[in-house]
Amino acid sequence: MDLITKGAAEIIPSEALRERVAKSAASGVPMRIKAGFDPTAPDLHLGHTVLIRKLRHFQQLGHTVIFLIGDATALIGDPTGRNVTRKPLTREEIGRNAETYKEQVFKILDPGKTEVRYNSEWLDELGFEGMIRLAAKATLSQMLERDEFHKRFQEEQPISVHEMLYPLVQGYDSVMLKCDVELGGTDQKFNLMRGRDLQRDAGQPPQIILMTPILEGLDGVQKMSKSLGNAIGIHEPAGEMYGKLMSISDDLMWKYYTLLTDLRGSEIDAMRDEVSHGGLHPMKVKKDLAWSIVRDFHSATDADAADGVVVRLPKLLHLAGLASSAGEATRKIGENAVSMDGEKYADKVLRGVKAGGSVALRLGKKSVRVDWVK
Amino acid sequence: MDLITKGAAEIIPSEALRERVAKSAASGVPMRIKAGFDPTAPDLHLGHTVLIRKLRHFQQLGHTVIFLIGDATALIGDPTGRNVTRKPLTREEIGRNAETYKEQVFKILDPGKTEVRYNSEWLDELGFEGMIRLAAKATLSQMLERDEFHKRFQEEQPISVHEMLYPLVQGYDSVMLKCDVELGGTDQKFNLMRGRDLQRDAGQPPQIILMTPILEGLDGVQKMSKSLGNAIGIHEPAGEMYGKLMSISDDLMWKYYTLLTDLRGSEIDAMRDEVSHGGLHPMKVKKDLAWSIVRDFHSATDADAADGVVVRLPKLLHLAGLASSAGEATRKIGENAVSMDGEKYADKVLRGVKAGGSVALRLGKKSVRVDWVK
Repeated sequence: MDLITKGAAEIIPSEALRERVAKSAASGVPMRIKAGFDPTAPDLHLGHTVLIRKLRHFQQLGHTVIFLIGDATALIGDPTGRNVTRKPLTREEIGRNAETYKEQVFKILDPGKTEVRYNSEWLDELGFEGMIRLAAKATLSQMLERDEFHKRFQEEQPISVHEMLYPLVQGYDSVMLKCDVELGGTDQKFNLMRGRDLQRDAGQPPQIILMTPILEGLDGVQKMSKSLGNAIGIHEPAGEMYGKLMSISDDLMWKYYTLLTDLRGSEIDAMRDEVSHGGLHPMKVKKDLAWSIVRDFHSATDADAADGVVVRLPKLLHLAGLASSAGEATRKIGENAVSMDGEKYADKVLRGVKAGGSVALRLGKKSVRVDWVK
Repeated sequence: MDLITKGAAEIIPSEALRERVAKSAASGVPMRIKAGFDPTAPDLHLGHTVLIRKLRHFQQLGHTVIFLIGDATALIGDPTGRNVTRKPLTREEIGRNAETYKEQVFKILDPGKTEVRYNSEWLDELGFEGMIRLAAKATLSQMLERDEFHKRFQEEQPISVHEMLYPLVQGYDSVMLKCDVELGGTDQKFNLMRGRDLQRDAGQPPQIILMTPILEGLDGVQKMSKSLGNAIGIHEPAGEMYGKLMSISDDLMWKYYTLLTDLRGSEIDAMRDEVSHGGLHPMKVKKDLAWSIVRDFHSATDADAADGVVVRLPKLLHLAGLASSAGEATRKIGENAVSMDGEKYADKVLRGVKAGGSVALRLGKKSVRVDWVK
């Protein structure tokens, strides 16, 4: 229970998970755990891995985990967290994205013990009649109880009729997969609850929902999302990933520890204590985090190589006063206006940095020498 | 134009119909005229025939008319005029009703010149993706502009999500059928307009909509509807049909003339004038109406037989003071408590009535002699 509830923000109903785990242990029948991902972008990022790691926890305990690729729901686009209607994707885009998801997810899950499913399997079979009967299972008022819809409705932002079908379809997936538990972010609560309604309606025991907190992206403010440009993709090169992780705030670092590593809560708390008493430097703790995450998606060797030897150049140029912002610095690098130790340097990442060494940077007429402290 | 606009309540856009008729005449390409009927009840009634007669007018002018049986939309149930969600029908019930509609409609239309279509043809093909893309073409706010939805929403009456799909699906039918004109009652305006939107979206010239007034039933108040018990079914026996028609109010009679006969507007106006000046007895005019309608759905011989020889007994017993209401009289007839000329009489209709003759009626202890005036 410690493992599967670690980092959970809310479990509904709160006591039912323990009971169902006990029942599964007594009967020897594994529980069926679903997490669904709509392949609306070409790559998975660390935000997705919060749920995938949680799937792995259940997998480690012998339960059946279902990595559900929402290739049919991607056509609708989950309205969660959106204040505008998503642009619909084509089947081809969705198919390509789905293939990438499938490759990338096995960096975390055990392929031999994972059911990979596509919801087009049953949604394409549903037909006109099935869709109508499904849509008849909810009312407009129930849909407007949803925060996002209510807000958009009040603010006279358009809500497309098809967006109201999304929660019902997600719930129908749970019926078809006979889920015992569905995982999702806290912003998914409305959708996750529909699964309970529809399972009850279909004569199944309603699934338990386990919600994880929203993982903020590099900016520490908004939910990690490729379209917001604050994401760390799990396909990114080790150095890039390491550099991005080193750029997060000290506060956010603890949340990343909880949601993106397998350290126990008690271990994380102990580290945090040590840092607050000055016994441990936060930079060291952050390096360990970055190392651990790079190891998960690449290898320990790659993580070693990235550790301490990568510096993001735009941020450095800004901090050193050569550019008014990291954005400006990025532009200048693109314009080939930056030199390092007297030579043009057009890479956004500085490699081969050694503690105790130094480097001479120039941008336009300004130059500066940076010393790498031990 | 006189024939096709006779009795029309509204044409949108008002000038376009004349133009499209002229274009069709010039090109020799007939227009495509659709009227759709959801087989939600086992029989057609006179209310349906208002539109079917209008289809015939177009047919008489050489245009292609489409009698669309909404076997797929019947699964949703048109929310028009409803303040509660309809109970869904099964495919079997719908199929049986659709068969009856098909038989009954050719009492008015020429079978050789009518396209009978079922919207399951294309809706069953639409699939999950098609439904989603269709539902994406309207917003919740547009749907709530519809009077019925707005009213139900304000009054916190439930609106099912599937009801919002109905207008879109009806519009999609027009796209698939490439309609030039769609016919419907004035209460159908919202649904009919969706066809224009979706045709424009699909690159087709938007259909012209021709709306007919709502036909009130026997009560003269509510829209004719089988479920309200105020309908005259086109399958009903000649005597029954005749008797029911004779029971409508003098006011309603004129509307029936306009919508249920082929008399020109000017002829009807002339008759009305004559009645108001006392030159013509309204009973005579009503008999002619009843005769004409019975002739249309049975034969002139049947109409002759029904004309003047059928009296609805419950109403007569009430008028004669033997029962406190027609309802009570109906009950008493069912209990075998009524005698005519000394013999038990258990039929709700009196036949063989001859002007100048008379009949002795008894109910319980009360009796009365009725003389048939010439």
